[in-house]
Amino acid sequence: MAKKKMILDLDTGVDDALALAYALATPDADLIGVVSSFGNTQMETAAQNTLKLLELLGEDNVPVYLGASHSSTTTDFETMQVSKDIHGDNAIGDVVLPEPKQNVAAQTAVDFLIQSAHKYAADLIVVPTGPLTNLAAAYQKDTKVADLIGNVTLMGGALTVPGNVTPYTEANINQDPEAADYVFKHAKHLVMVGLDVTLQTLLTKKETQQWRDLGTEKGRVFADIFDFYIDAYDSLNINKAGAALHDPLAVGVAVDPKLVTLLPLNMMVDANDGRTIGDPTRLRDAHKNNFAAVAVDEPFYLERFMNYTLAILG
Amino acid sequence: MAKKKMILDLDTGVDDALALAYALATPDADLIGVVSSFGNTQMETAAQNTLKLLELLGEDNVPVYLGASHSSTTTDFETMQVSKDIHGDNAIGDVVLPEPKQNVAAQTAVDFLIQSAHKYAADLIVVPTGPLTNLAAAYQKDTKVADLIGNVTLMGGALTVPGNVTPYTEANINQDPEAADYVFKHAKHLVMVGLDVTLQTLLTKKETQQWRDLGTEKGRVFADIFDFYIDAYDSLNINKAGAALHDPLAVGVAVDPKLVTLLPLNMMVDANDGRTIGDPTRLRDAHKNNFAAVAVDEPFYLERFMNYTLAILG
Repeated sequence: MAKKKMILDLDTGVDDALALAYALATPDADLIGVVSSFGNTQMETAAQNTLKLLELLGEDNVPVYLGASHSSTTTDFETMQVSKDIHGDNAIGDVVLPEPKQNVAAQTAVDFLIQSAHKYAADLIVVPTGPLTNLAAAYQKDTKVADLIGNVTLMGGALTVPGNVTPYTEANINQDPEAADYVFKHAKHLVMVGLDVTLQTLLTKKETQQWRDLGTEKGRVFADIFDFYIDAYDSLNINKAGAALHDPLAVGVAVDPKLVTLLPLNMMVDANDGRTIGDPTRLRDAHKNNFAAVAVDEPFYLERFMNYTLAILG
Repeated sequence: MAKKKMILDLDTGVDDALALAYALATPDADLIGVVSSFGNTQMETAAQNTLKLLELLGEDNVPVYLGASHSSTTTDFETMQVSKDIHGDNAIGDVVLPEPKQNVAAQTAVDFLIQSAHKYAADLIVVPTGPLTNLAAAYQKDTKVADLIGNVTLMGGALTVPGNVTPYTEANINQDPEAADYVFKHAKHLVMVGLDVTLQTLLTKKETQQWRDLGTEKGRVFADIFDFYIDAYDSLNINKAGAALHDPLAVGVAVDPKLVTLLPLNMMVDANDGRTIGDPTRLRDAHKNNFAAVAVDEPFYLERFMNYTLAILG
């Protein structure tokens, strides 16, 4: 079996930054590119953040592609105030990093996804941690793509717990419910890593101090970025026990699904309320193309997360 | 280990009638009484239906107790038109049965639940297939009861699929969300058998014909009752593939949880929308008192269901 190839689709973002670090650190897949999306911030800002972080981590050979700057049903996108409150005005905890030396790739996100799907097929893992706009567009531009990509593992949705934007919807899904519904229904194999499990994997300043204690610039920057997020979780009363490792958990599950308990369940996304929920019309189908993570081995994941991040930040 | 004792809490009801037959047929528990609830019909009608069915099945030694005639937050109850459409005006498929010879018990449902909790404790299984009003009232009248009852397995709720009254709420929970929330939070061990699984266990006229072919009065009556329900499912476009074995599945799971996949998840019932959903404040608690059925072995259950019902109707 060939080594898996991974594409991240990030709206970078504090926890996206850690998804990037985790994807670079895991031995179980090669990161072949990062696609940029709107969400936690504007798409262009997300792309610049990704370039800056890649250079900080000494991985500026990974290409970054520009994706959709707004949802499939709108003509523009304005970053929500709550996103700025949680991620900072620059979306990476208001930590200032040097301007990147690299530029974004000339190819579009959609064309890179399509090309990679044909090239790697079952060996390709796509991990969206923002809206599913880019992936839906790739599915729609080339109808073979949905069946080619071996594994889509996304951070988003909420099946067994309330949402975080409304009681029904989670932030990533809420950005583009129509695109999400299309991806859920058409993906060959889709794993949803939603609030059900990401709210159970929390990081505290005890762990970020370990990065700081490495004495490296990388360690300090990541500790500063994530401490902003921990402070926001605390001051906004989201969670006082720590901040959720939303996006890096999705990367972890993408290469090792055994970190979670997966419920085979064909789902839909309700366009009215943005809820991810079982699709009654596909409930009794023997074939399942959607799998929802409904439980997580938090101590095991946290240990691996710290091993990987301490290695790459050291 | 002493043989389990079972109390059914029925709003009888077509599928309640089958829950009763299944509970009498299973070798895994003794049915010690049936509590009556409002829901599919008025509480008094439900009690009379239960008495009639017990006599038809030659089991008129099982006592029937009158329970709440309306929810914990209302002063009266009117049967919904959709309930009449599905279950018939008399709630047992408009099949006319002789007036029962037995009377309801003098003791109230709440006092019978409390007395049985103290008497049988961990060996007691309570199976509500209607609103949770009676059980919540017993919990509140005697605060020891919630911790005494070994197993509450209810038909109700919808965790991973939409509701059947609104997209958010299921009929039994919707009748009294406050009582349900109280029971979910206080029960020692509560198994939710919701639409997630009951919509996957369907009966058709092929199976009711097998009851009819027994050539007994019991077989004919149960076939007539359930055929009304199958026809209603068809004409109301609820499901054309068959009618859901909601209540008898809960009885099956109550004595044999291995019929389903159980997700340990501490839940709440939202008073605003009647949704059964993970309780964010209890999400990371290591101790779980709620377990949601999220998958079912339909062929295995259907085979057992037919074996039991053919035995008792023969």
